[in-house]
Amino acid sequence: MNANVEKLALIRAVLQQKSIDAYIIPLSDPHLGEYIPGHWKIIPWLTGFTGSAASVIITHTLAGLWTDSRYFVQAEAQLEGSEYILMKPGSFQKYDYVDWLAENISSGSKIGFDGRIFSISQVRKLEEALGLKKITFDDNCDIITEMWTDRPPMPVSVAWDHPVEYSGSDRSKKIAEVRKKMKEKGADLHLLTSIDDIMWLLNIRGNDVEFSPLLTSFALVGERQILLFVDDKKIPQTLKAEFDKLGIVMLPYEETCEMISSLADGSLIMVNPSTTSVALYKSIPERFEIIEDISIPTRLKSIKNKTEIENLSAVMVKDGVALTKFFFYIDQNNDKVPMTEVSLAVKILELRSHQKDFLGASFATITAFKEHGALPHYSSVPETDSIVGERGLLLVDSGGQYMGGTTDITRTVPIGLPTAREKNDFTLVLKGHIKLAMAKFPYGTRGYQLDHLAREPLWQNGLNYGHGTGHGVGYCLNVHEGPQSISPADNKSLIEPGMLISNEPAIYRGGEYGIRTENLILCYEDEETEFGKFLKFDTLSLCYIDNKLIDISILEKKEIEWLNKYHSGVFEKLSPHLEPDEIAWLKDKTEPILNHY
Amino acid sequence: MNANVEKLALIRAVLQQKSIDAYIIPLSDPHLGEYIPGHWKIIPWLTGFTGSAASVIITHTLAGLWTDSRYFVQAEAQLEGSEYILMKPGSFQKYDYVDWLAENISSGSKIGFDGRIFSISQVRKLEEALGLKKITFDDNCDIITEMWTDRPPMPVSVAWDHPVEYSGSDRSKKIAEVRKKMKEKGADLHLLTSIDDIMWLLNIRGNDVEFSPLLTSFALVGERQILLFVDDKKIPQTLKAEFDKLGIVMLPYEETCEMISSLADGSLIMVNPSTTSVALYKSIPERFEIIEDISIPTRLKSIKNKTEIENLSAVMVKDGVALTKFFFYIDQNNDKVPMTEVSLAVKILELRSHQKDFLGASFATITAFKEHGALPHYSSVPETDSIVGERGLLLVDSGGQYMGGTTDITRTVPIGLPTAREKNDFTLVLKGHIKLAMAKFPYGTRGYQLDHLAREPLWQNGLNYGHGTGHGVGYCLNVHEGPQSISPADNKSLIEPGMLISNEPAIYRGGEYGIRTENLILCYEDEETEFGKFLKFDTLSLCYIDNKLIDISILEKKEIEWLNKYHSGVFEKLSPHLEPDEIAWLKDKTEPILNHY
Repeated sequence: MNANVEKLALIRAVLQQKSIDAYIIPLSDPHLGEYIPGHWKIIPWLTGFTGSAASVIITHTLAGLWTDSRYFVQAEAQLEGSEYILMKPGSFQKYDYVDWLAENISSGSKIGFDGRIFSISQVRKLEEALGLKKITFDDNCDIITEMWTDRPPMPVSVAWDHPVEYSGSDRSKKIAEVRKKMKEKGADLHLLTSIDDIMWLLNIRGNDVEFSPLLTSFALVGERQILLFVDDKKIPQTLKAEFDKLGIVMLPYEETCEMISSLADGSLIMVNPSTTSVALYKSIPERFEIIEDISIPTRLKSIKNKTEIENLSAVMVKDGVALTKFFFYIDQNNDKVPMTEVSLAVKILELRSHQKDFLGASFATITAFKEHGALPHYSSVPETDSIVGERGLLLVDSGGQYMGGTTDITRTVPIGLPTAREKNDFTLVLKGHIKLAMAKFPYGTRGYQLDHLAREPLWQNGLNYGHGTGHGVGYCLNVHEGPQSISPADNKSLIEPGMLISNEPAIYRGGEYGIRTENLILCYEDEETEFGKFLKFDTLSLCYIDNKLIDISILEKKEIEWLNKYHSGVFEKLSPHLEPDEIAWLKDKTEPILNHY
Repeated sequence: MNANVEKLALIRAVLQQKSIDAYIIPLSDPHLGEYIPGHWKIIPWLTGFTGSAASVIITHTLAGLWTDSRYFVQAEAQLEGSEYILMKPGSFQKYDYVDWLAENISSGSKIGFDGRIFSISQVRKLEEALGLKKITFDDNCDIITEMWTDRPPMPVSVAWDHPVEYSGSDRSKKIAEVRKKMKEKGADLHLLTSIDDIMWLLNIRGNDVEFSPLLTSFALVGERQILLFVDDKKIPQTLKAEFDKLGIVMLPYEETCEMISSLADGSLIMVNPSTTSVALYKSIPERFEIIEDISIPTRLKSIKNKTEIENLSAVMVKDGVALTKFFFYIDQNNDKVPMTEVSLAVKILELRSHQKDFLGASFATITAFKEHGALPHYSSVPETDSIVGERGLLLVDSGGQYMGGTTDITRTVPIGLPTAREKNDFTLVLKGHIKLAMAKFPYGTRGYQLDHLAREPLWQNGLNYGHGTGHGVGYCLNVHEGPQSISPADNKSLIEPGMLISNEPAIYRGGEYGIRTENLILCYEDEETEFGKFLKFDTLSLCYIDNKLIDISILEKKEIEWLNKYHSGVFEKLSPHLEPDEIAWLKDKTEPILNHY
């Protein structure tokens, strides 16, 4: 009996004892965000699957794991030999554990989960889906702690200051801004559960998790004080002195629920139900009226300030230099040095690390060759590593954390000669990318109104991609940040000047190849007419788009003009930081295409 | 003291007596739809304003009337001399009476309205907007009935059969379909409050209101019976016999609430909160569980069947013939016969009435010359009538009710020579119109994803229009029909094969002119690829688009191709039904534009 089977048997024994019919294990922590520390990585420990998105349901007859399509190949490899079944929906379908429960759980059942790592929104979603069945919940069901004897401890990195030369606004100013908005909403208290909100508000960062400079903490903003729930030893003396001046009171992280439950002042508290755990939500004293909304820092930090925008421009040059060196390296060495997806992921990290103020990768690098590229967010891991050698398309999606901003960029390049279909697909994706990059739209527009722009050339040819076109991007924070997005989903957030968003249309040809072209675009105010204010996007990312993959005959004149202008900017901004042979190579890669062909 | 002032004083006296601080009067009837009989036209009787959309609030210090921009000119004229103030928002803003109440009513106030003509959704909207203020509602406050001594009686038209050769599906089949969907939802009862739903379900029509062939009634669909709440004398014997066979039981219309409140069977009732009055909603016995959703007939009837689509094509020819004769008439007689907006509205109705199976106009014809065209839904009434003579743009938005379908079409034509800016604006609107007409999109797409297509050429030039791009259209029923729409609003309804929708981008140059080009488009399934099913639109409306207003230099090749193909279809389908001089004229109007210029 292997370890996984043993653990499963243990869990089932506890379920039996507690009369629980289905136990839900999410891959999340008490902050319900994307980046979680090892302490809360229950699913990898339990099942062997290491992907960044997963849910597990254990019943007396089933042990099922749900993840999304990017991880199917990896999950199948990693779950092999375990009792866990990968619960795979059909193509272009969404089918999550909630749907499965709605279909399979019988009336009168009891569902258990650990309410410390399960959001109030998730519970409501469950209640709605199972509405007509009589189901009871045990939301205080932690089976894991007792079993997991060698569990990693909670992270203990030390906070560091994110100086105002990077943040563009000091703590006191940000706090005043949040309090002003709280007043407008009528809230005396504002509970912050998303760690990046707290980092932004207090101009601090930490190293508690991979890919985003976060320091695990909760915060409660009041009219005069801020309670910061964090391990005392994680805050250095200099910061403590600063905090003291601003009325920031530190309290033990473990006592968050307890302290909230004993709040003496206040009557109206603002809470985001999607990022607040059941346990924390329930600890709010009954006498409080709760305003549920996206947090105020989430809205404020999505609009980048002038300093942030200036720093971002400098960061884009650094990132572009690293990427150019990377693709130059592949081009020069592909037939000499053995390359694999994993070795290339290491290479790009190394090249970024030579850049000043680089802090680390902003997410797990995707270097996906040929059919691996057809998995939208394929993860390059040893289990599925493959040699990048013979003819095919290589998709590279990577990003960096810098003091002055966060990057996220995807390029698809040909190894050897591309086929006509690859060129046609690539050019259709590029057309969509350019259409969105050139968009102009009135103030008041939502992302779902713009999503179509990037898809139109694909749709006209019966093609599509199964993910959104753009996500918000943090600033020296999470690479995926709300509230805005550009996608078919009915996200009510406006696209506003100062917002940083990805532009990443794609095509995935299952079993063959994937194509994605991604830049970060920044929204700015263009002109005001009698019909209102109009906004546009500025493309910030700097890296050539491979001309070898472009079928010029299907590009419109204004698309060619955009591309040539973009390429001239790339060359102009990057070449001062490159070696002579790299400059010559980039010059060729960024030649205007009408002259080039 | 004029009559309006007297009525206002009377109402205020009752408010005083009932301790009501604000009295809301909607322009609606117990069915909460768009078309209401004279009996419920309280606002025109009270204020003199005859527009089709309005709300009135009466407090002790204010008598305010809200309507939308299409009626501003008319409302200002009609309210002159009354004590009612037109509550006008700024341009491109929405500002309704709910916003006004939220800003102006003080905590502790009491708001009154007649719950028989106020929907549950409206009450909830009020509650939400006024949430933090302590407000009480008197939802049983009918001040009008006693005052209005010469009130028009309820309409008493007689129902007529809409035969299966037009409806394409007989009553029993439709009823079975609705019951099947009810079963899927778990509902034993389904309350139908929208009259057009009932007309569709029972294949009947009536003449109770202007513009839509409706017969005032409620219906309650059960598993075996249907209760039809309608005046007994409105149903002819032949239909009664038919109904009897199908288990349709007639009950007095006035007793709807009472009968609902005494329901003996059932436990789960399906109700649409947007079209159900507070009074009716509250009459549902407490023991019922209520499923709130758009009604099943609303969803079913939005998908036109094969017979309906075939009939629609024939109707479009008739409608196009009438329109061609109309524009030919203007062109030939403009310098000979005096023409005004109102006389032209009469003319177009006359021409349509010569067509077989024509039942009447589907809405109040808009014939708007020059600056009147800048009011998106300007209403051509004697108060604001103007001569159509000297140079300018004429916007004509009109439609007909036919046994085989409902039409809605807008054309803008030049009187005299158009200016360069008029041509540029017209061509930008046309580009948007064509882009939407040529759209191809995957199954699962919502209207808000397509809206941008029609706006993109305008947005790129800093232009826009303040209304949606497309609304659903009924079949020998309401010209505005749900659930689908093509607009920036986050309407979750999918655009599905069989749906009939308007395509009407526009530009309004305040004080100068308006341009709108509207056709009805029908969604159909195009192809299925590895990326799913793809849908397209077929343009059904048939009327030339005036080449004199087109600036060919800003049209793309595929847009010119679309236009030439459309025009060749218009000529081919309409010319067999026209006189020789009309044919020659239409031939010229529909010449391919590359040859023409």
